[in-house]
Amino acid sequence: MGEAILSDIFTNVLIPATAVVGIAFALLQWVLVSKVRLSPAEADAEGTGKNGYSEYLIDEEEGLNDHNVVVKCAEIQRAISEDALIRATAGASSFLFTEYQYVGIFMAIFAILIFLFLGSVEGFSTKSQPCTYSKDKTCKPALANAIFSTLSFLLGGITSVVSGFLGMKIATYANARTTLEARKGVGKAFITAFRSGAVMGFLLAANGLLILFISINLFKLYYGDDWEGLFEAITGYGLGGSSMALFGRVGGGIYTKAADVGADLVGKVERNIPEDDPRNPAVIADNVGDNVGDIAGMGSDLFGSYAESSCAALVVASISSFGINHDLTAMLYPLLISSMGIIVCLITTLFATDFFEIKAVKEIEPSLKRQLIISTILMTFGIAIVSWVALPSTFTIFNFGVQKSVKNWELFFCVAIGLWAGLVIGFITEYYTSNAYSPVQDVADSCRTGAATNVIFGLALGYKSVIIPIFAIAVSIFVSFSLAAMYGIAVAALGMLSTIATGLAIDAYGPISDNAGGIAEMAGMSHRIRERTDALDAAGNTTAAIGKGFAIGSAALVSLALFGAFVSRAEISTVDVLTPKVFIGLLVGAMLPYWFSAMTMKSVGSAALKMVEEVRRQFNTIPGLMEGTARPDYTNCVKISTDASIKEMIPPGALVMLTPLVVGTLFGVETLSGVLAGSLVSGVQIAISASNTGGAWDNAKKYIEAGASEHARLLGPKGSDPHKAAVIGDTIGDPLKDTSGPSLNILIKLMAVESLVFAPFFATHGGLLFKLF
Amino acid sequence: MGEAILSDIFTNVLIPATAVVGIAFALLQWVLVSKVRLSPAEADAEGTGKNGYSEYLIDEEEGLNDHNVVVKCAEIQRAISEDALIRATAGASSFLFTEYQYVGIFMAIFAILIFLFLGSVEGFSTKSQPCTYSKDKTCKPALANAIFSTLSFLLGGITSVVSGFLGMKIATYANARTTLEARKGVGKAFITAFRSGAVMGFLLAANGLLILFISINLFKLYYGDDWEGLFEAITGYGLGGSSMALFGRVGGGIYTKAADVGADLVGKVERNIPEDDPRNPAVIADNVGDNVGDIAGMGSDLFGSYAESSCAALVVASISSFGINHDLTAMLYPLLISSMGIIVCLITTLFATDFFEIKAVKEIEPSLKRQLIISTILMTFGIAIVSWVALPSTFTIFNFGVQKSVKNWELFFCVAIGLWAGLVIGFITEYYTSNAYSPVQDVADSCRTGAATNVIFGLALGYKSVIIPIFAIAVSIFVSFSLAAMYGIAVAALGMLSTIATGLAIDAYGPISDNAGGIAEMAGMSHRIRERTDALDAAGNTTAAIGKGFAIGSAALVSLALFGAFVSRAEISTVDVLTPKVFIGLLVGAMLPYWFSAMTMKSVGSAALKMVEEVRRQFNTIPGLMEGTARPDYTNCVKISTDASIKEMIPPGALVMLTPLVVGTLFGVETLSGVLAGSLVSGVQIAISASNTGGAWDNAKKYIEAGASEHARLLGPKGSDPHKAAVIGDTIGDPLKDTSGPSLNILIKLMAVESLVFAPFFATHGGLLFKLF
Repeated sequence: MGEAILSDIFTNVLIPATAVVGIAFALLQWVLVSKVRLSPAEADAEGTGKNGYSEYLIDEEEGLNDHNVVVKCAEIQRAISEDALIRATAGASSFLFTEYQYVGIFMAIFAILIFLFLGSVEGFSTKSQPCTYSKDKTCKPALANAIFSTLSFLLGGITSVVSGFLGMKIATYANARTTLEARKGVGKAFITAFRSGAVMGFLLAANGLLILFISINLFKLYYGDDWEGLFEAITGYGLGGSSMALFGRVGGGIYTKAADVGADLVGKVERNIPEDDPRNPAVIADNVGDNVGDIAGMGSDLFGSYAESSCAALVVASISSFGINHDLTAMLYPLLISSMGIIVCLITTLFATDFFEIKAVKEIEPSLKRQLIISTILMTFGIAIVSWVALPSTFTIFNFGVQKSVKNWELFFCVAIGLWAGLVIGFITEYYTSNAYSPVQDVADSCRTGAATNVIFGLALGYKSVIIPIFAIAVSIFVSFSLAAMYGIAVAALGMLSTIATGLAIDAYGPISDNAGGIAEMAGMSHRIRERTDALDAAGNTTAAIGKGFAIGSAALVSLALFGAFVSRAEISTVDVLTPKVFIGLLVGAMLPYWFSAMTMKSVGSAALKMVEEVRRQFNTIPGLMEGTARPDYTNCVKISTDASIKEMIPPGALVMLTPLVVGTLFGVETLSGVLAGSLVSGVQIAISASNTGGAWDNAKKYIEAGASEHARLLGPKGSDPHKAAVIGDTIGDPLKDTSGPSLNILIKLMAVESLVFAPFFATHGGLLFKLF
Repeated sequence: MGEAILSDIFTNVLIPATAVVGIAFALLQWVLVSKVRLSPAEADAEGTGKNGYSEYLIDEEEGLNDHNVVVKCAEIQRAISEDALIRATAGASSFLFTEYQYVGIFMAIFAILIFLFLGSVEGFSTKSQPCTYSKDKTCKPALANAIFSTLSFLLGGITSVVSGFLGMKIATYANARTTLEARKGVGKAFITAFRSGAVMGFLLAANGLLILFISINLFKLYYGDDWEGLFEAITGYGLGGSSMALFGRVGGGIYTKAADVGADLVGKVERNIPEDDPRNPAVIADNVGDNVGDIAGMGSDLFGSYAESSCAALVVASISSFGINHDLTAMLYPLLISSMGIIVCLITTLFATDFFEIKAVKEIEPSLKRQLIISTILMTFGIAIVSWVALPSTFTIFNFGVQKSVKNWELFFCVAIGLWAGLVIGFITEYYTSNAYSPVQDVADSCRTGAATNVIFGLALGYKSVIIPIFAIAVSIFVSFSLAAMYGIAVAALGMLSTIATGLAIDAYGPISDNAGGIAEMAGMSHRIRERTDALDAAGNTTAAIGKGFAIGSAALVSLALFGAFVSRAEISTVDVLTPKVFIGLLVGAMLPYWFSAMTMKSVGSAALKMVEEVRRQFNTIPGLMEGTARPDYTNCVKISTDASIKEMIPPGALVMLTPLVVGTLFGVETLSGVLAGSLVSGVQIAISASNTGGAWDNAKKYIEAGASEHARLLGPKGSDPHKAAVIGDTIGDPLKDTSGPSLNILIKLMAVESLVFAPFFATHGGLLFKLF
């Protein structure tokens, strides 16, 4: 066995220290971003604020001759765009508040449920009981587990809300600044957008780690030596994080895509006005949507994955030799990996912001990709160091009833393979969604014969893009499972997420650039600037797809790890497909992602229909709207998106949250195991294909619009038939890539973590239906 | 235990007798169809043949005034349509011959593989060996198994080819006759189309049963008392049937949809000429495609399902008390169920053709649905009778190593639940794909805002339509598995397929009506007649979707039964999801349907692109083509479809055929079990959603075109923007519903039956990779 090199005290200092370093780094980036002044007045540390800002933007306008016209136009445009910008920022906050209000009620109800279900396991008894895995010891009562699980659930939920909200605040703070910097050149704009992304990435990663660490230490005050109970209770943290993420993704996804689809269908297709034109009544809703859907949603999602993979690893570790021997440093290995991740990402970020400088548009994408590669290579060494200093050279890991002997270098391989599988998935995703490669170009080419072939090719591309990621995940699972059972899978997931700060930074960079472009358009800035922000945005589309790839890949590993932890806790040792209970679970589980997608797609479709009607109505009834002499009623569109997303997020949310409860209670743990496995293996595929199909359509459209090659110019320009076909594909892809697809990875994770939390209840009281008959 | 009421001798007479009755009934229907004369001359049993035929059609034309124009038009049209019709009939035969030639080579190679793999199990030894399940008895050598499996594989392949070919012949024989009858009224046309469908249904069902029965009896001459070996060898029959079906479905599907998509994109969307207009160069290829894809493909597919479910039931029965006690009547219970099915379907058919008469268009769909209900109700009694007379009151069924005691009424429930689950799936499919209900009307309504919302709503509809069928399948599996283990599932599948003759009849009715409409259009018949054939066709679209629902539902049950038989034969008793070998199999298996769909969708897309270019080229370069004064070059389009389908069916075919071999040989039976379970639970969902989405789009378009309600007229007429959006949806749906979707159920069945056939090899020599490391 042996001891870890790192002492427990040092571990207890190191983890919060790196978290604090991460937060400090995030604040430093914020300070750097805030140095970009929004108005000359503000630059003098004085002045008119918002008004000065748009004046400054308009000054940039070129190529207009008649002075009177210029003044007139500028005035109207200023009024509209100023109004629009203020509304967009306020809209995002106000939507999130409304959303959190509803979700708050849900959280309260669910917290009570957790307490009641878990408390009832031992009939709310306050007596200590023998431990589940070490029968000779005494553990805290089930009631304590109920209370602390409920607490950590709420804590996870709140952390997730804070993460999402901070991300949104940073994004709305950063996008106008990115637009301004775009006037100075693409390099400056890139750094601003990237730094803002980094603020979010580091804040989230460090925050998540810090709160988890503090919670463990606080809970330990009560639990003492009962680590089994302690880390069982901690899993509530993952559940809280992920359930908030679900509503964030679904609600935000419906919001953003209803607005986006609605704005595009009337604006781009019918009225032939550019994207993000302030004359479009849905433009504000679209803008708000980017922030609440892509930023807040993604933030909550990845935070959830991170929290869950840590919890899954901890809960398995607590019943392995680490937990049994109370070996704190080894026990906190997952947190140490995350700490190392923060340091590695910090160094990596400097490569983008300080060591290299972007000089031309074509350097943007390579620079972002370099971030992934550098962080992966550095992290590999980081993992090796952590595995060497924090783990005993040999230890045992709980493996469905037996203890399996594992060496520290084997665990290194588990984490590393997860990390590298993430990189593979990232690059494959890039290959299938970037318009620099043939798959997207083929899709663009198929627009020659219209929207139908575009859709057929796009769907085929999405299906095909599943193959290699699935093999990458399968190999990671096989290797890490073989080396260190379910713990191996949990740490592989953690490995994939260890560079989460960098991942989130390049991910948040996308919507920030997208919004920056929108602001340039709304403020009527020159074509040259719009081109720069478009280039930033195009790279952002690809990185968004890469981010989704990471999110899905890690979700698959996390879910499997949680599934394993659930099975261990529910005290079943095999999940045999050849028993009818399991098989029907598997079949129905594989169906759930379809049911869920049907709901979310339909929601987006219906909300978009309403949006289209409203936008059409405004164009038809407000005189002077098309000419830019009248102001659209943005509020109505924002209201449609808000109402739709709040109303429509409930049924899919209920499906995900209730399924484990219903199945576990009525059919028992075996059927539930089947459901979890089925939804996992089926959901991963739909999630990957949906987000890649959508990404490919989006970039096929951009490929035609940019006209950067002979082939692309043949298909263009904007407004040509192939371009129109491409716009249809893009619109179809919106709900696939930004609503259904990314929500699915939360579906699979959340059902697994929920089952894990409720496992003691299901194990004692579950399977009512079979017990009755 | 007890004995069956029915004596063995009587069983041996009854089965072939009902098969002969089925064949005789089919021939009678053929005679009745052939009474419709194609020309007045032919009616006089004399005359000019083909020429007279089109003269007669043209005579029907009304509403043209200028006599010269009429004559001119009639002449040109006659020449074109006559040429077209001859080519269409010849084209279908010639394509099938080309296809069978290539597939013949494949069959030969695969037959050698089967022989080599299975022969090598005991090193090609000719010595008898102890039986696998009754170790005290001696069974025939593995070499005999190799030889007879190879033989039955070839037999199954040939039967499948014959089934497909006969279906195609009947369809091309029937469609022009249906058109002619449509002049007399919708009732006459319906009966002709339906009778023709019945010819195919009864021929296939009776043929499949007869050949299976004869094979068993011939093989018995060698095997004698070694029933274990005998029925192992018989499973080759299912493999042969299904592998031919795979190529039929994939090749035919690519053929028909490349032509259909190509013809629609240029004809309907760009040139604004009606569907099936003889001026469209791709019209012949489209026409041929209906026959080779929908008719021949569907025939082979359902024959394959039927053969496989019989084989799965037989192979499990052979190691249960039926086989061990050599209880022939009980052993042949699956065949007796099929015999009863033929009698029940015969009576059911009379309800459509003789007892009731269709008088109005709106009676068509109810009449077809009545067929399903009547056959299901009658068959329930039929099953009860067979279960009562053919089974001992108690018997034992092999259940993964142990024998489970089962009562005869329990087995009745297994068959009946399969039968009724089929009906439920059928009706749900109808609900989601018929334009009489709100789901399709919602999709049609979403066309108001363009193609993008149409596609979003259509995809959501397809996803949603999965829910109830999956529950229906899950309940069937649970009940039949609980009652009679894997044998229960096999007979449940057989129950779903027991009314196959009726199912195939209404299924084949669809493409026949579709083609009849095409002929009416090509021959320039009056609008009134075209309306009647359109009404027949619209009902046919729904029944086609119902047929696909049956095919998928039964495929799910069949695959599971085969999977169970495979697991038994490979001598593994649990398939534990918690082992990495199984889990990665599950994950990769769930990915295979996506990989497969990517290939088939892309193939259709590429072939359609080529077709579009050729059709555009002809319209642009052949003077007078649009005016109808010049003849298009149909041959080129036929060649594009033929070449594409032959070339493109190889990669997906190879994926399906090689996966079990590669996985079984390299990774062993456990991973293979995972792959089978994964592809089953994932494939079913995609198959159902793809075919329902496609069906819904097709009927949403028809809903707008028909304009039967206030709402529909609001969206129409043909050529309106919503209609154009609907056409795009319809085109996207084509490869989904006629290529990928229906091929997927063959994928899951075929991989399972192939694994079953090769199980002895995998069990002895499989898992090389794990053995090496």
